[in-house]
Amino acid sequence: MADTTTTNGRVRIPRDPSDDYTQELAAARRAFVQERTGTELRHVGHYSVDPATVQGNIENFLGVAQVPIGLAGPLHINGEHARGEFYVPMATTEGTLVASYNRGMRLLSESGGVRTTVVEEHMQRAPVFVLDDALEAREFGNWVDERFADIKAAAESTTRSGQLSYIGQYSIGPLRYLRFNYTTGDAAGQNMTGKATLAACEWIRANHPASPRYILSGNIDTDKKHSRINMLLTRGKRVVAEATIKKEALQRLMGVDTETLFWARQIQMAGSFLVGSANNGAHAANGLTAMFIATGQDVANVSEAHAAVSYTQLLPNGDYYWSITLPALIVASYGGGTGLATQRECLEVLGCYGSGNVHKFAEICAAVVLAGETSLSSAVLAGDWVSSHDQLGRNRP
Amino acid sequence: MADTTTTNGRVRIPRDPSDDYTQELAAARRAFVQERTGTELRHVGHYSVDPATVQGNIENFLGVAQVPIGLAGPLHINGEHARGEFYVPMATTEGTLVASYNRGMRLLSESGGVRTTVVEEHMQRAPVFVLDDALEAREFGNWVDERFADIKAAAESTTRSGQLSYIGQYSIGPLRYLRFNYTTGDAAGQNMTGKATLAACEWIRANHPASPRYILSGNIDTDKKHSRINMLLTRGKRVVAEATIKKEALQRLMGVDTETLFWARQIQMAGSFLVGSANNGAHAANGLTAMFIATGQDVANVSEAHAAVSYTQLLPNGDYYWSITLPALIVASYGGGTGLATQRECLEVLGCYGSGNVHKFAEICAAVVLAGETSLSSAVLAGDWVSSHDQLGRNRP
Amino acid sequence: MADTTTTNGRVRIPRDPSDDYTQELAAARRAFVQERTGTELRHVGHYSVDPATVQGNIENFLGVAQVPIGLAGPLHINGEHARGEFYVPMATTEGTLVASYNRGMRLLSESGGVRTTVVEEHMQRAPVFVLDDALEAREFGNWVDERFADIKAAAESTTRSGQLSYIGQYSIGPLRYLRFNYTTGDAAGQNMTGKATLAACEWIRANHPASPRYILSGNIDTDKKHSRINMLLTRGKRVVAEATIKKEALQRLMGVDTETLFWARQIQMAGSFLVGSANNGAHAANGLTAMFIATGQDVANVSEAHAAVSYTQLLPNGDYYWSITLPALIVASYGGGTGLATQRECLEVLGCYGSGNVHKFAEICAAVVLAGETSLSSAVLAGDWVSSHDQLGRNRP
Amino acid sequence: MADTTTTNGRVRIPRDPSDDYTQELAAARRAFVQERTGTELRHVGHYSVDPATVQGNIENFLGVAQVPIGLAGPLHINGEHARGEFYVPMATTEGTLVASYNRGMRLLSESGGVRTTVVEEHMQRAPVFVLDDALEAREFGNWVDERFADIKAAAESTTRSGQLSYIGQYSIGPLRYLRFNYTTGDAAGQNMTGKATLAACEWIRANHPASPRYILSGNIDTDKKHSRINMLLTRGKRVVAEATIKKEALQRLMGVDTETLFWARQIQMAGSFLVGSANNGAHAANGLTAMFIATGQDVANVSEAHAAVSYTQLLPNGDYYWSITLPALIVASYGGGTGLATQRECLEVLGCYGSGNVHKFAEICAAVVLAGETSLSSAVLAGDWVSSHDQLGRNRP
Repeated sequence: MADTTTTNGRVRIPRDPSDDYTQELAAARRAFVQERTGTELRHVGHYSVDPATVQGNIENFLGVAQVPIGLAGPLHINGEHARGEFYVPMATTEGTLVASYNRGMRLLSESGGVRTTVVEEHMQRAPVFVLDDALEAREFGNWVDERFADIKAAAESTTRSGQLSYIGQYSIGPLRYLRFNYTTGDAAGQNMTGKATLAACEWIRANHPASPRYILSGNIDTDKKHSRINMLLTRGKRVVAEATIKKEALQRLMGVDTETLFWARQIQMAGSFLVGSANNGAHAANGLTAMFIATGQDVANVSEAHAAVSYTQLLPNGDYYWSITLPALIVASYGGGTGLATQRECLEVLGCYGSGNVHKFAEICAAVVLAGETSLSSAVLAGDWVSSHDQLGRNRP
Repeated sequence: MADTTTTNGRVRIPRDPSDDYTQELAAARRAFVQERTGTELRHVGHYSVDPATVQGNIENFLGVAQVPIGLAGPLHINGEHARGEFYVPMATTEGTLVASYNRGMRLLSESGGVRTTVVEEHMQRAPVFVLDDALEAREFGNWVDERFADIKAAAESTTRSGQLSYIGQYSIGPLRYLRFNYTTGDAAGQNMTGKATLAACEWIRANHPASPRYILSGNIDTDKKHSRINMLLTRGKRVVAEATIKKEALQRLMGVDTETLFWARQIQMAGSFLVGSANNGAHAANGLTAMFIATGQDVANVSEAHAAVSYTQLLPNGDYYWSITLPALIVASYGGGTGLATQRECLEVLGCYGSGNVHKFAEICAAVVLAGETSLSSAVLAGDWVSSHDQLGRNRP
Repeated sequence: MADTTTTNGRVRIPRDPSDDYTQELAAARRAFVQERTGTELRHVGHYSVDPATVQGNIENFLGVAQVPIGLAGPLHINGEHARGEFYVPMATTEGTLVASYNRGMRLLSESGGVRTTVVEEHMQRAPVFVLDDALEAREFGNWVDERFADIKAAAESTTRSGQLSYIGQYSIGPLRYLRFNYTTGDAAGQNMTGKATLAACEWIRANHPASPRYILSGNIDTDKKHSRINMLLTRGKRVVAEATIKKEALQRLMGVDTETLFWARQIQMAGSFLVGSANNGAHAANGLTAMFIATGQDVANVSEAHAAVSYTQLLPNGDYYWSITLPALIVASYGGGTGLATQRECLEVLGCYGSGNVHKFAEICAAVVLAGETSLSSAVLAGDWVSSHDQLGRNRP
Repeated sequence: MADTTTTNGRVRIPRDPSDDYTQELAAARRAFVQERTGTELRHVGHYSVDPATVQGNIENFLGVAQVPIGLAGPLHINGEHARGEFYVPMATTEGTLVASYNRGMRLLSESGGVRTTVVEEHMQRAPVFVLDDALEAREFGNWVDERFADIKAAAESTTRSGQLSYIGQYSIGPLRYLRFNYTTGDAAGQNMTGKATLAACEWIRANHPASPRYILSGNIDTDKKHSRINMLLTRGKRVVAEATIKKEALQRLMGVDTETLFWARQIQMAGSFLVGSANNGAHAANGLTAMFIATGQDVANVSEAHAAVSYTQLLPNGDYYWSITLPALIVASYGGGTGLATQRECLEVLGCYGSGNVHKFAEICAAVVLAGETSLSSAVLAGDWVSSHDQLGRNRP
């Protein structure tokens, strides 16, 4: 039975502690919403996902957001893990986005495809220990270094797939921030690393003579927040996509010359640097968000994942070497939302669902981002940026 | 008829230029996917949204992502525009998230509610003009200042709701970056400001003696990218949510003392500052992303919107003043994806669909973020962060 | 008589409140040092500056640091204010520095000289007002905008040469940071703006109904600290130096090709962006520090002044356009240390001492920085960076 | 004989390649300046330093800048290396500075003194290797890791005191930035690390199968430039100074309450974070610059050294714990300008000249910075900031 008690005049949302993930409870909550706000959740209540399967992904479930998916591709990738032609499901409500990525994919494919590779991977949890003074904090840091094997054992005792790679240390006054870096298999790993690091911290507290106080996050992880430390030291996967754009193909498909692109690049890099941007390219966030929603990634990670460094060179023959490096791509092929109904289907379209596929998926993400960079950067210069949005992005009465 | 031609060995996605937004075309594309990849898009093909309505929001539509929505609330808000008890639909696949925000809402409500207000609003497009040297660039800037009225007229001729507030100017070498700042009514306004600024730039080119070359974006907008300029000068809405947390309520509901929270706050601010974080708080991205997906916002804007500055003080009576300032909250109550089937319903639940509601919606967003800050910050200190994820976030076989 | 009393066992430095700026007191303090530390200040006590003239520049004067000055030049400048051939006194103890800048000056001079101009100027003091909540803070901001004329009058009543240009406003929670921007004539202006802003704040407090509490600096000035806001909005002078380097001259004098320089530039910009550098060029700090020490500038301002944005393009004919923009060059031709004995002489060598010369001096600074950029960037590529330091920078037994 | 030839109409500064460091050449250059600019360098030509001793520190020597030195102290330090009462020579032309630091020293001394310690040390040179693509760059990185012992041997073959600690690696596209981290004994070490890293890079080029191209600095060192990577990973010494300020002493000496200081601290931290400041404290640059000039440090390093993180807590008894962490303090007790006439004397006053003293000197620097923080922060709140500058900083007719 739905539990709609009122406490202190506060009307509570219906729940059933014994089994909250049923069609009935979802319907009861939609009815509750209608009663409280007058809004009938007709479309929200239309779904094919089984409520029983969303346990672990949501609380107070009452239906779904239907986010339109468009298909882009094929995109030719010559990656370390992703190889071949890919059709990419992108969930978005921003008109023009799919069309724009699509034409970038064509350009890249006609230029011989995209090379991709994951160059580094680390997922973090970063507790902070509070010592009596800076000298003790330094000595504590040395103590931690010396006990790395024990600490690693304590951390890894909590997880099958997580492995502690190294502990970065950062001192401020009497504080010692320890940034635990893990590999996390096919999962994104935020929960796994939280649990493992808690075990490690408890081991430290139990074994260090001072039994120092700690906080499980000192805010340098930096979870769900862009930061310079993540750009530098990688969070999730550090992935590179690179391609050599044919001068002829760029002119034919985008109406822009490679010289012009490179000239403009100097100007955009100066601007990005001046304003302290998280990304000196165009719009990695667009493609990543659309893929993240479609494939059940934790979409809030776009805050971190959208950071990027573009590096390009104009080649002597007029072709254009273009690379993009994503230093904080947090993705999973397993766990989280990846197993839900539509999300799993979309991962399967990419051949990326389940164990052993996370690097392949990361590579596809980076390749898609590069496609979007070529398309938008060209549109800005060719003058069809505004006109295409006018044509494809009209969505008001 | 669907158009599945092959060009240069490239198999193209089915399209029908005459009417691409139909059930048939969507089905044809799902069939195409199945043929090319072997994946049947059964769940993706299950939706109630009418394909005809997604024109302007997506291209190559083939179905939807079903993202689970959970309900949180009530949240008591004493805002300038948002007033009363709100139940908040949150679309996410991250277990624990809804539950955590929910308990934060309870704490805030029991502490007398959240005050909210939009303190500033600006949406930008930032072209760059290329002059012969720095001196000419400076003089060009003066010329622009003197013609502000004409430039404003040119820009506003393209839009009903956009208004040009001011043009920020930034010099690098011979380059003059002009950052056009607009109010954009109830729309987020990226397209509107692009179109208006294009008109303004064309006016400038036609009227300035040097007819200088320009690029419509010099990358300091900074669209879909976190940046320091956005934090400083606002992008979208700058919104503040603030509350005075009762010492007693925090202890009772969260198991933490306000003194402990403030002590930890010093440590977390030091950490955030050290690592160059976009946000010195906990996790604004989580709540914003869930609300953005549910309500049809452009979710890629989380890259910008997640930036925040928390400012708190421990009061003499032991209560805890807590504010969060979101300097780059990009939201709409109209246009974009807000009118789609489930998205509109969710906006209506908040009483925020359509004209005249964007400030109310922005205030609710900020209040929700504050709720999440109180909950996570407390969980980290009370030691139930990991255990609650273990209990609510298990989502693997 | 020197006053060397002991308080609480604390031996105090000799002082004479009636006339502390004499040879006798300086000698007494040197004697005190010798007595307390055993160090005879023979060289420190050797100076020609009259102790009476350092009042207002130093307290507890006991002698001078003799910092070696080397001469570089001539540097050909075609500036807005600086025009002709300049010989530049540089005070440093870093071997190779003068030689390196000197060869850069030759390259620039042989390439037709440097164009320079001051494109913007603002000196700041940034108080913060504390209101009851964010809404009041916003309304307070509007109130300030409406009273700008009165506030300006209050501020300018304290100074002959300072003029209030505009007040930037930044909101965080209930706080309203007001960033007062002034022009300050030929002075650097930190004290002048402090005094003027204090008067303005007192006027505000006296006239605003809430009589709000304020702090004269909320740390966003940001005095003596590099910051992004200073790079964006200028602190002191924003100065540009630009030149077109002849391909032939670069090869002949530096042993490097312009193509190689531009190729390397892409790599260095990527690196600078990645690591969050205050300057995407080579080493503005070196030249500026040497000039600041020689000419009596407040050398601590190097912390801010060293920020820079380099913007370059390889021209079709193989020549190399090179600009450097210094967004926070804080300099004076009058006041501060500029009137002291050696400092004034060095300013006079540049024709920059006294009223009306600060823009000229700022332009020379920027031109010198550009010279240093060309020399070091070339040395890194030509392979003589290490060897030249080995040859010129050996300074140990 | 002085060589004043004219090349291409360019009048060259007199030099004597056979022996350029003599009184005669210095005088010839002063005469040359007078002839070219009309300025007699009377005071610049007054010095006691022997021209022969400045070889390796300067080129084209013609005299000295006489920078006034004031004495502050005593400052009681309970450091790891610096212990006892110190009198500090500070070279500056900014009135009030010495007085302000002096009263901060008194406050700290009366509060029991300052604890100081060096918690980390690294000096860097950061070459970048250019590979064919990202995958090769990653594999190259692994190759480097595996040959660390050989690379270390190659690097250390060039230096007696430098030791290679570790090589940080950072990937962008096909680029692999290697950040060599050294300890450098009592020297600052920029030249030493440049030379050692050159040798290491040459070893790599000779031994790696691809013999990859490299640039000796990819601009992530980041030499003479503030950067986030330096704050995070330390450049030079990472030094902490900490003290517990007595509530009573602060009130008595500064006229401010510790509660007020802590309240204001929250506001200043919010401001610093918002604007992207290199330092969330007050003005480390002032004290460091004055000490650097006095003691022959490379003053341009103030650009990096002024970065700081303040971390404070109000204690239950009302006392105020205050720490400052300098993450990039680049100092030497030997080499560079430390051995020059006045510079050496000033180091000797602190008992810091020569081998084995660099940690002691670093600790004193940090303690002095903390003294300045307490004094200025209090002055801003007590309202005597402007009045004291008005009293002590008047230096114009």
